[in-house]
Amino acid sequence: MQRKYLAKIFVTLRPSVLDPAGVAVQSGLQQLGYNNVEQVRIGKYIELIITSTEEIKARQDLERICDQMLANPVIENYRFDLIEVETQTGVF
Amino acid sequence: MQRKYLAKIFVTLRPSVLDPAGVAVQSGLQQLGYNNVEQVRIGKYIELIITSTEEIKARQDLERICDQMLANPVIENYRFDLIEVETQTGVF
Repeated sequence: MQRKYLAKIFVTLRPSVLDPAGVAVQSGLQQLGYNNVEQVRIGKYIELIITSTEEIKARQDLERICDQMLANPVIENYRFDLIEVETQTGVF
Repeated sequence: MQRKYLAKIFVTLRPSVLDPAGVAVQSGLQQLGYNNVEQVRIGKYIELIITSTEEIKARQDLERICDQMLANPVIENYRFDLIEVETQTGVF
């Protein structure tokens, strides 16, 4: 039986990698008066529906998908949560 | 007393807004042979440290920050989790 899973994927820069966009946001926030914000890091959040016969297969597919397309493993880490869904609605 | 909070912020396109980047990723995945993936939606995931005397004030600041800088409220939704942290480490 085919099951549908909602995958919530987080792609984040590795801690050792500089994040110029995060620095720009922090600097913009300081100009707006928010001096209480620091260490801004900007990553990606991806949701998708994946169909598979078993959760373990969906996880294997997702790891390959993240390595090949969603993340750059040289500078980024990723992690994901899988939630089985009945219908195709519910994304975002 | 000043408290530090780690904010995990999710910025996602409103469901009614087209996501060309998500469509491109889905099409790329199909070319790689992943025909079991659909409804790809790409959003932003932001982490930052915010300092405040109370959690309620940190939340109010974050809502303003999301409205003014991190999200475009016309086309995007946002939500965030706040976690009190002892030290400044632990971002990402």
